[in-house]
Amino acid sequence: MMQHNELLTLLTDFGLSDGYVGIMKGVIAAVNPHLRVVDLTHDLPPQDVAAGRFCLMNAYSYFPEGTVHVAVVDPGVGSHRRAIAVQVTEGFFVAPDNGLLTGVLSQQPEVVAAVELTNPQYWRTPTPSTTFHGRDIFAPVGAHLASGVPLEKLGHLIDPSTLVQLELPNYQLTTTGATGCIQYGDRFGNLVTNIPGTLVAGKKWSVVVRGHTIAAAETYGNVEIGQAIAPIGSHGWVEIAVNGGSARAHLQLQVGAPVEVIFD
Amino acid sequence: MMQHNELLTLLTDFGLSDGYVGIMKGVIAAVNPHLRVVDLTHDLPPQDVAAGRFCLMNAYSYFPEGTVHVAVVDPGVGSHRRAIAVQVTEGFFVAPDNGLLTGVLSQQPEVVAAVELTNPQYWRTPTPSTTFHGRDIFAPVGAHLASGVPLEKLGHLIDPSTLVQLELPNYQLTTTGATGCIQYGDRFGNLVTNIPGTLVAGKKWSVVVRGHTIAAAETYGNVEIGQAIAPIGSHGWVEIAVNGGSARAHLQLQVGAPVEVIFD
Amino acid sequence: MMQHNELLTLLTDFGLSDGYVGIMKGVIAAVNPHLRVVDLTHDLPPQDVAAGRFCLMNAYSYFPEGTVHVAVVDPGVGSHRRAIAVQVTEGFFVAPDNGLLTGVLSQQPEVVAAVELTNPQYWRTPTPSTTFHGRDIFAPVGAHLASGVPLEKLGHLIDPSTLVQLELPNYQLTTTGATGCIQYGDRFGNLVTNIPGTLVAGKKWSVVVRGHTIAAAETYGNVEIGQAIAPIGSHGWVEIAVNGGSARAHLQLQVGAPVEVIFD
Repeated sequence: MMQHNELLTLLTDFGLSDGYVGIMKGVIAAVNPHLRVVDLTHDLPPQDVAAGRFCLMNAYSYFPEGTVHVAVVDPGVGSHRRAIAVQVTEGFFVAPDNGLLTGVLSQQPEVVAAVELTNPQYWRTPTPSTTFHGRDIFAPVGAHLASGVPLEKLGHLIDPSTLVQLELPNYQLTTTGATGCIQYGDRFGNLVTNIPGTLVAGKKWSVVVRGHTIAAAETYGNVEIGQAIAPIGSHGWVEIAVNGGSARAHLQLQVGAPVEVIFD
Repeated sequence: MMQHNELLTLLTDFGLSDGYVGIMKGVIAAVNPHLRVVDLTHDLPPQDVAAGRFCLMNAYSYFPEGTVHVAVVDPGVGSHRRAIAVQVTEGFFVAPDNGLLTGVLSQQPEVVAAVELTNPQYWRTPTPSTTFHGRDIFAPVGAHLASGVPLEKLGHLIDPSTLVQLELPNYQLTTTGATGCIQYGDRFGNLVTNIPGTLVAGKKWSVVVRGHTIAAAETYGNVEIGQAIAPIGSHGWVEIAVNGGSARAHLQLQVGAPVEVIFD
Repeated sequence: MMQHNELLTLLTDFGLSDGYVGIMKGVIAAVNPHLRVVDLTHDLPPQDVAAGRFCLMNAYSYFPEGTVHVAVVDPGVGSHRRAIAVQVTEGFFVAPDNGLLTGVLSQQPEVVAAVELTNPQYWRTPTPSTTFHGRDIFAPVGAHLASGVPLEKLGHLIDPSTLVQLELPNYQLTTTGATGCIQYGDRFGNLVTNIPGTLVAGKKWSVVVRGHTIAAAETYGNVEIGQAIAPIGSHGWVEIAVNGGSARAHLQLQVGAPVEVIFD
């Protein structure tokens, strides 16, 4: 059985300027001052569940087995969306049931157990606010879970097949390669497509986007400053990067923009 | 007696880009490597004591009793403003004596003890810089306090009634409700008034601001995108929020702008 | 012999929005969940090795002896630049060999030992990505080092004199004072020169920059709002600051701009 390891991560869109994240950490320390807390990110675009899904999916697997990941991007807070905790082989996830776990569940399809968080005994207060469940429900539940409270005590079991999943565009195989789209742009302006690196690994290929053909390359090597390359990025997806610059700015591309991989 | 719990929070306007906060944590670790440090926020508007007051007041009470809160928004560093440590029922505060504790003291009027930090034995160096008391005085004093050094050893006792308090506009009851102002705007563009939620709870009310009348509502429910509502926010004040947007941007409101609550 | 203290700092240009730093902390926790991790900064200008050098140089000495500092500003990732670990009297540094340690080594010229990180046993994977050595090499190596693995096990010893050093403009003594340049601008708009405070301490002096003469002063005292002063800053360099504003904005100065100190 997976051991609870007193390690907890936080991923939110709360930003770091207003103290919301600090408050969540206070609530966690009040439950169990020995828990260790790691920030995944708090600077997701406000209410961008898809971006949260992407960051969480790329980060959780690097943590020790049994880590509790508390993820709060929650445009539906105060409405009837469920609050959930999900156990998969590698760890635990506490989140609103709005698709934030879509990426994790695509990689970890065997859900050990899922519960709706209906037991107020593990909340900060039996009368939570309508706007800050991060503080009143998700943080304290995560803290109890990381302290060894069994998942089943947090609420009633739910059918994992009923968990909300984000409908995301998928890549499509074509006769010449594959079509897909940009699913994320990072701080450096690197653009991450939804085409997995495993599809192109060992082949000769290039990316076509907005009429530009961009050669596959893992490093800038003797690529000139300002020129684009298409590596398999560190998260395992086909990416587009610009030497010494931002692919997003140079190519004027947004999340959702179509891309095509063409095999030689 | 309140126990020292080896937990310390930091709140500053130093930002996270320059390493100032990392340096404070180095100083804390050098005093006692076992202390746990939680960031409340470091992205307060530079030198905005009122914003620091607001964040600190809303965050401290979620931490375990005995936590040491080190708060440094310090436009008067290097001048004759006092450096202080204050003990209230719930915990300890280490800060410049410039009003940063005004919010905490309004909630915790019974000060157990207050000292001016005049004992250089607990500073990083007996000759502190004139510009970075966060590093040279506040962080090491906070670390010693969180490690169990009695408050009285940090300097000489001072009369709590002499602590500097910010003069803030208060709300006023009127024949039809109450008048007040915006006291804070958060990252989401939500506007927090200085009118306490307890004043309106259980009543029927709305907010009038710049000629707009905004209906009281706890959630967006069937409010349209771009429309404003007035909930009692998670910190307990009457707030103004816009569905899917920023109330600050939509209503063009700044901190200090007058607002009125009207009872039906 | 210096003791390993299970304390690790991180300095990168990865930003906090994308989860890269969270992933590094996951890798560290997977090596040893008991390590304590402190962020120096992650908001360095992308790929700005000189700014990273400045922040690291100003921060490391405040940490306890034996701390491991992992620094990753790595425009050459995936190319043939070496990955290194260096032991000096005060602690350990893990970084790409691109000059990031130039500042530390100028203060700590006696290198105890330096190794090239060639032992994949201490990496996250024997086949690291070409783009994210922070995750695959630097974080896990730092975690092993902080856990007590001897430096020599991490790879083969290299001659410290071969470590890459940044060529930075130096200050020059003149008949009337010294000439130098701006080496850093912080979040408050304060400008840090490369002229050491020790050169001017105890003397009467002023700074000339872009035709302005700025008087030496440690505090704003009765300086007007918007007026500039030249203090010896908290990091020990001659700085330029503007009362209630940004020296960078007021004086329109960039990093590299020439400055002159003139003795009375």
